[in-house]
Amino acid sequence: MTHLVSYDIADDSLRIKVSKLLIQLGLHRVQYSVFMGQLKTSNRGKLERSLKKIAQSPKWSDEDSVMMLPLHQYSSDFVKFIGDTPDHWLEIQGKLHTLIL
Amino acid sequence: MTHLVSYDIADDSLRIKVSKLLIQLGLHRVQYSVFMGQLKTSNRGKLERSLKKIAQSPKWSDEDSVMMLPLHQYSSDFVKFIGDTPDHWLEIQGKLHTLIL
Repeated sequence: MTHLVSYDIADDSLRIKVSKLLIQLGLHRVQYSVFMGQLKTSNRGKLERSLKKIAQSPKWSDEDSVMMLPLHQYSSDFVKFIGDTPDHWLEIQGKLHTLIL
Repeated sequence: MTHLVSYDIADDSLRIKVSKLLIQLGLHRVQYSVFMGQLKTSNRGKLERSLKKIAQSPKWSDEDSVMMLPLHQYSSDFVKFIGDTPDHWLEIQGKLHTLIL
């Protein structure tokens, strides 16, 4: 299932921890704080549990947030980039079509 | 139509210009560089044209990007926030249901 995950995390070490976790689970960075890619149902649960644990860290701020957004094929069909298209965009798009069509 | 718009823009003045434009068109800031809300078809075209114009500014960097992502109801039904939920979240969600269901 295609997901978009974006974050606002003030602390550098926590932010790096989350970005590494997202990449480990197979997501690609499409913008500085926005990741996209395929997330298996089991990994979605794993990610949510890991994030909830990270959010209990004393370094986590009250304004910090992570958004997990599952995407319908519709979104990938009609997404548009103005300016720089992400490095892995064709791969991300290709995966979307392979797994969902 | 619900949209997510996110950006990576290095120059402060350009970034502020884009954020003001997004808010003007009725989107809400859900994270620092991520906006969501309803975008009429006419405003979608207007936004795209404005962004393409902004991307021609000498202040625009090669790595800068804006992503325009139309969202299916599915996304709003299953979105999750870990940590801080955006201020206008109920309103954004409410609008989603009002206009799409």
